[in-house]
Amino acid sequence: MININIPRKNKTITTEAGDKLLKILIDNGEFVEGPCGGRGSCGRCKIKHISGYLPLITEDEKRFLSEEEINNGIRLACLISPTSDIQIDIIDQEKNHKVLTGGFIPEFNINPSIWKKVISIDKPTLGISTTYEDLFTNILGLEELDLNVLKNLKMQSGQFTVVYDGDKLMGLEYGNTTNEIYGVAVDIGTTTVVASLININTGEEIDSEAEINAQKNFGQDVLTRITYVVENREQGTLELQKAIVNSLNKMLNRICERQNLSKDRIYEMSIAANSTMIHILLGVESISLGKSPYAQMFSKAKNIMAREIGLDSMSSFARISTLPSVSSYIGADIVAGAFVAGLHKTDKRVLFIDIGTNGEIVLSDRGKLVSCSCAAGPALEGMNISSGMRASDGAIEEMGIGENEITLQVIGNTKPIGLCGSGILAAVREMLACGLVNERGNIVKPDSLESDDFRQKYLIVENKKRSIKINKDIRITQGDIRQVQLAKSAILSGFVALVNYVGLELTDLDEVIVAGQFGAHLPVESLVGTGILPKDVEKKIRYIGNSSKTGAYLSLISLDSRKEMNNLSKQIDYMELSVSEGYERLFVESSRFKI
Amino acid sequence: MININIPRKNKTITTEAGDKLLKILIDNGEFVEGPCGGRGSCGRCKIKHISGYLPLITEDEKRFLSEEEINNGIRLACLISPTSDIQIDIIDQEKNHKVLTGGFIPEFNINPSIWKKVISIDKPTLGISTTYEDLFTNILGLEELDLNVLKNLKMQSGQFTVVYDGDKLMGLEYGNTTNEIYGVAVDIGTTTVVASLININTGEEIDSEAEINAQKNFGQDVLTRITYVVENREQGTLELQKAIVNSLNKMLNRICERQNLSKDRIYEMSIAANSTMIHILLGVESISLGKSPYAQMFSKAKNIMAREIGLDSMSSFARISTLPSVSSYIGADIVAGAFVAGLHKTDKRVLFIDIGTNGEIVLSDRGKLVSCSCAAGPALEGMNISSGMRASDGAIEEMGIGENEITLQVIGNTKPIGLCGSGILAAVREMLACGLVNERGNIVKPDSLESDDFRQKYLIVENKKRSIKINKDIRITQGDIRQVQLAKSAILSGFVALVNYVGLELTDLDEVIVAGQFGAHLPVESLVGTGILPKDVEKKIRYIGNSSKTGAYLSLISLDSRKEMNNLSKQIDYMELSVSEGYERLFVESSRFKI
Repeated sequence: MININIPRKNKTITTEAGDKLLKILIDNGEFVEGPCGGRGSCGRCKIKHISGYLPLITEDEKRFLSEEEINNGIRLACLISPTSDIQIDIIDQEKNHKVLTGGFIPEFNINPSIWKKVISIDKPTLGISTTYEDLFTNILGLEELDLNVLKNLKMQSGQFTVVYDGDKLMGLEYGNTTNEIYGVAVDIGTTTVVASLININTGEEIDSEAEINAQKNFGQDVLTRITYVVENREQGTLELQKAIVNSLNKMLNRICERQNLSKDRIYEMSIAANSTMIHILLGVESISLGKSPYAQMFSKAKNIMAREIGLDSMSSFARISTLPSVSSYIGADIVAGAFVAGLHKTDKRVLFIDIGTNGEIVLSDRGKLVSCSCAAGPALEGMNISSGMRASDGAIEEMGIGENEITLQVIGNTKPIGLCGSGILAAVREMLACGLVNERGNIVKPDSLESDDFRQKYLIVENKKRSIKINKDIRITQGDIRQVQLAKSAILSGFVALVNYVGLELTDLDEVIVAGQFGAHLPVESLVGTGILPKDVEKKIRYIGNSSKTGAYLSLISLDSRKEMNNLSKQIDYMELSVSEGYERLFVESSRFKI
Repeated sequence: MININIPRKNKTITTEAGDKLLKILIDNGEFVEGPCGGRGSCGRCKIKHISGYLPLITEDEKRFLSEEEINNGIRLACLISPTSDIQIDIIDQEKNHKVLTGGFIPEFNINPSIWKKVISIDKPTLGISTTYEDLFTNILGLEELDLNVLKNLKMQSGQFTVVYDGDKLMGLEYGNTTNEIYGVAVDIGTTTVVASLININTGEEIDSEAEINAQKNFGQDVLTRITYVVENREQGTLELQKAIVNSLNKMLNRICERQNLSKDRIYEMSIAANSTMIHILLGVESISLGKSPYAQMFSKAKNIMAREIGLDSMSSFARISTLPSVSSYIGADIVAGAFVAGLHKTDKRVLFIDIGTNGEIVLSDRGKLVSCSCAAGPALEGMNISSGMRASDGAIEEMGIGENEITLQVIGNTKPIGLCGSGILAAVREMLACGLVNERGNIVKPDSLESDDFRQKYLIVENKKRSIKINKDIRITQGDIRQVQLAKSAILSGFVALVNYVGLELTDLDEVIVAGQFGAHLPVESLVGTGILPKDVEKKIRYIGNSSKTGAYLSLISLDSRKEMNNLSKQIDYMELSVSEGYERLFVESSRFKI
């Protein structure tokens, strides 16, 4: 055994001689950059040698080090194997330096699937029957070049950059382009698509774009889009696929233009999304996802050529990788979220919930995972509400109902024109708090209140129908409250059923993690105040942002994370709510607003 | 050791116990059909069990045998392993039964790369989280289905036919389609394209089509087409590729219509051609083939999806396989020819020659192979000749010059309108024979002949230029004879140089094999009578027809042949004529017409 001592960190690693230093450090929890995966081709895993014996510096290392660095004892950790005790220092590299903007990111090693190396090629000469292909395959240790690679070559000599996806050659580029390796992390939501350009060498998020999913023209939610495919069997899938692919192409083109970046330097798009979105993106029939037994055509992670689905806003040999899913209703977005939330390796009891049109819940009982999905409907996103609207300028997103007046918080600080999801939730919360609505969800009758009660001024009765006046244009109807109640009931009953299913009580939960772009806009007060989440977990709620995109990001720049997500997807059990015992009773109970 | 006795053939094979009977029989030179390669999936390797112990018949065998066959002792040779002495009979199957029309075919085993098997799939059921993909991968022992396969599936249960290319799953078809496996054998000549539809199960040629290569609009020969690519770098290769792909699509569509065959049942196109044609077909830059050092971009056999190059007249998952080449000027067509001629396994000295615009020669000195290529020019195909034309209706293809008249043989028995390649050769042969042309290739002067010499009436002198009158419209000029003389000189000097290069004399040759569509139309009298081939080999000439297409055919239906051709291509040395010693002197000597 030998000792690797890091004085500055007051740490000593005891290990067997023989392994590469990079592996030793990473295995022992040190963060050393190594985007090439220890292949000696990126030159980023620099460490400082302080004392003790190390083999002499090689030409391979010198290629990546300046004279000053060599004089200062800088070495490449992936190219040296210590054979006796040494002292070293780790070159400070901020972990997850300027990575994704927003959202929680767990710790990870940068070891992306995409990497590059430089080779030199001479032209064939007369009399030697070597083909141009042979020159490359001899250097690269391959049987042959793919036709796609070969047909993009012109016969010339000089430097070439070889682009790899794992062990597989993706393509060849003229000159040395090793400094430019970009990828894209994408979350395709049913409503919104988000894409971030990532520097694969550093993990840095360079730029991002968000856009309404163009498939909305074919249907607002997953089921109506599947219905479109059922009714248009010939072309439906293709049309929906084209809509999302066009969106992605446009978003990437805008980013490239803004960043003055050639699309040829973007090599992979990593995508998380729900199962229907992924089936459609890849052009696979989605009809079975919409009817019993709700079987998926596939659940595994897929890796294909981007051009196969018409994505032409990246390199001609760029690839698309989609994350794995669990079932029709626990998609790759939820696998990503469960991974980002660390559900697979927690020693606690953690419940993960993604609130949207569907509420997906994954419960980790100290690493044992089970999931369910509940149809919340679109009310929580401001849809099917009489004055509902999307979260854009003019939407009321928060409010307070006081004795004298109702105060409103409006997106864009403009004149209020409607309520978005968080606004309608805030309204219901306030109305419950002041007794304008009772725990059965009924608006109080004016004649049950004193005539000088402050609530009288908010109550309206027209044609025997009661509603509540927010301002002179905007009202909340009894029907609106029923919509919220249905959503609340669906989510809360799923939440409770899942906790019961694994034999736990609500109070056993150590943490409730709320994910999703939409969830991030729902404050604890609204979630608990409307009874969407039970009061018992009020102090245990944590938000992690768009964990679907974060999962896509991690899969893009960390093969370790990608593998862990593949394993994780197989570990999540699925509980079918509709067939779980006593569910109907639970649903009815959950419809009560507990005040 | 055990004995397999075949009484009808008076033959006993002694072998070790353990091997499958099919393998024993094939290894010992018996012809037993086995298109599935001994996988037990085609049921064609039937034999009759006469006596001796064999394991009881299994369900696997019974699937392919009628009750009558079972009662008669019929068994499947690929599914039984004899453990003691037995007597059997081979079911008579005509070897190479109705295979290619025309041309010599060597013996071979039918074991095509493409094969099928039938599976049964149930639909996924509720509560079991199996995906549709899993149902297939579980049965087929695969990790995943290719996206191309997956996206062509609709979720339904029942019988499916799995189509394989070797070990690789190509696609899935609904129902049982094992009876229909078709492929296409293609020879792409610079001038003519020939395609044959082949029943891969039986090896039978069903139909064929021939068409002028549509690339002729971009240039008559290989070099002018490469020049077109040089001058149109952006689109040149694509335009030429599109021309040949369109031709192939049209030819196949015509065949399918005539045979009332669905294109979905055609799974592979096997292609032989010269190196430029193969580079262009696959969309690979051909510029380097046309200038020193004449290096190829690639020489290996390639196997790609047909749709990658726009070939859409076959199954959506059909493949294209091209044969391997040796060099820019010894292409896959010549490798095919050398294989068909058996050059790699002969114990004789055999010279193979393909006569066309280029003459390619491969010499086998008892299995040791060396090749060269000579630029004959287009004269032998009727081009660059004052009255030249292609071999179509109205072309003189043979003639005799008598004392009283010239007799003509005209294609289509119509009015003669010009001379095709074989016609111009016949003319030169006859003119040499009767002394109208001397051994230097000069037309005799009228005043050197007696005034009553019969030749006077064929001689014309205009503007001091001599020519020979074939009929009132058609003449052969001194320039025409010079063109033939150049071609003859190029071919003969290559022939002699190659024989000398390996240290042999012309008389050492045991056989001269003439290949090529064009070569087949040149009778020995013309070849030797004009001195294209030396007199010494006159009795040793054998024609084998379009051996390029025959090679493509063999690669299509026999993996053994495909592998042998791949090996063969690496065994052929290339002699660069222009740098061979004393070549210029030899070229001049070879220009003499020896009479």
